[in-house]
Amino acid sequence: MSQDAFKDQLAATAASVTYTLDALLSLPDGGEGRVVEAMRYAVLEGGKRLRPYLVIESAKVFGVESSRAVAAAAAIEMIHCYSLAHDDLPPMDDDDLRRGRPTVHMAFDEATAILAGDGLLTRAFAVLADPATHTDASIRSELSLVLANAAGSDGMVGGQMLDFLAQSESLNEAETERLQSLKTGCLLGAAAEFGAILGKASGQDRFAFQSFGLKLGAAFQIADDLLDLEASPQDAGKATGKDAAAGKATFISLYGADRARKQAWSLADQAIEILGKFGAEADGLRAAARFSVDRQS
Amino acid sequence: MSQDAFKDQLAATAASVTYTLDALLSLPDGGEGRVVEAMRYAVLEGGKRLRPYLVIESAKVFGVESSRAVAAAAAIEMIHCYSLAHDDLPPMDDDDLRRGRPTVHMAFDEATAILAGDGLLTRAFAVLADPATHTDASIRSELSLVLANAAGSDGMVGGQMLDFLAQSESLNEAETERLQSLKTGCLLGAAAEFGAILGKASGQDRFAFQSFGLKLGAAFQIADDLLDLEASPQDAGKATGKDAAAGKATFISLYGADRARKQAWSLADQAIEILGKFGAEADGLRAAARFSVDRQS
Repeated sequence: MSQDAFKDQLAATAASVTYTLDALLSLPDGGEGRVVEAMRYAVLEGGKRLRPYLVIESAKVFGVESSRAVAAAAAIEMIHCYSLAHDDLPPMDDDDLRRGRPTVHMAFDEATAILAGDGLLTRAFAVLADPATHTDASIRSELSLVLANAAGSDGMVGGQMLDFLAQSESLNEAETERLQSLKTGCLLGAAAEFGAILGKASGQDRFAFQSFGLKLGAAFQIADDLLDLEASPQDAGKATGKDAAAGKATFISLYGADRARKQAWSLADQAIEILGKFGAEADGLRAAARFSVDRQS
Repeated sequence: MSQDAFKDQLAATAASVTYTLDALLSLPDGGEGRVVEAMRYAVLEGGKRLRPYLVIESAKVFGVESSRAVAAAAAIEMIHCYSLAHDDLPPMDDDDLRRGRPTVHMAFDEATAILAGDGLLTRAFAVLADPATHTDASIRSELSLVLANAAGSDGMVGGQMLDFLAQSESLNEAETERLQSLKTGCLLGAAAEFGAILGKASGQDRFAFQSFGLKLGAAFQIADDLLDLEASPQDAGKATGKDAAAGKATFISLYGADRARKQAWSLADQAIEILGKFGAEADGLRAAARFSVDRQS
């Protein structure tokens, strides 16, 4: 699949996921509507929807139609967007700009941003437990378990804790890799595994898809750090150069941009290799692995 | 059941739930252990464990042993404790003291308190989705759906949003009741409904138990407001008199303490009436409804 064809497919998936998120987050009448407005603000605009894309494309490999995977994909995107809203708060990364517009606490206020994050995190599990998402309760329960483990203190939240601590401690390569794996990798691993769960894949295939997502996540994170180093805030849609200014350990600060770029490509190749036994139906995933490194072309 | 017998039973349940929470939240080796320490700090000390008590006593009415309800009860307590940790944050209620000791952000820091809340919220759904909690996936999924709806923007998070807005708007009686119902009632309703779900009760009985929890919650909230007005910070274990100082609308500010106390007792009686058809096995719940109003005796 060419990068152009991939980008068209990614954009089509993003539109479908945004439509689903819009439907799942209808505004209530009462005053509490403000928190739902903030939840909608946090999820509806912008974003490549890479995690939903992984859910939907992985499901496709196991013969599951997009329409039967899109709600679960939307749930993962809610988790991703809640984590950004909380991560941007003043006690955390203190960012004013995200995807080219004010962060949730700048557009609303800090209390509303905390509650909107809580609301999205909670809603994600309501969506996964809803029989409308999947008729088989054991599948719904398995999706919830995988997502909760990937997003919680043994996964993404644990990675954010490490990231916060890294502001005042210097990490070595192994610790940096672990931080990134927890913070970014686990959720991407869960996204790819979601497709396999929806397709009732074997335990071995589930593990392979999770590994694919983890490798892709590692490649993505290094590419993100390169973007932070090299792109202007206009191109990146958020403040850049913050990692270097904060003295944060990244693969780049440890080994330089050239070796980091090679490492990112090596990880993308490893991700693609994991998909070896699958045919053309996995081409979208292979293209996603390449895109995770090469987002500017 | 006498209030003394009830308090013994409540204390025994609390010990069992704390034991379960301790086991569910074991400390990992890595640096992310800090967030788990904060999660443990938020849930392990103090607390009456009223919500877990409702789960376990409701389950008992439908013939389910405590040992088979305690994990689900612990999950609800995680949700309750995460909401306290976030509610105490400076942009929200800005409280330094909770249950007689420093709040989570005072004992750790704001970022860690945000992440600990996120971690507890996420872990609650991991527990509910775990086959160790219940062997029947449809029960696990139903518990998740009921809890997510009760805790999210249509429930507790929505109530917290209204509570935040009430700092700058004055509410009438209906709006005050709605705020309290969302903020406190929904989770207590879910707790009582949890027992009915675990016991595979009919839809009608599930609804009755949810209604019982909602009524008890309404009584509890008015009693809490009376406590805020009348108790010393030492007795309450937290700052008191804050509602009046903040000009927050409560049933008391609207109608005075005498009518509020009568209203609380009337709601407790209504809760007990809902349990009419159930026998002595529901005595613990009846005692809980009385206790929700009369916590000092």
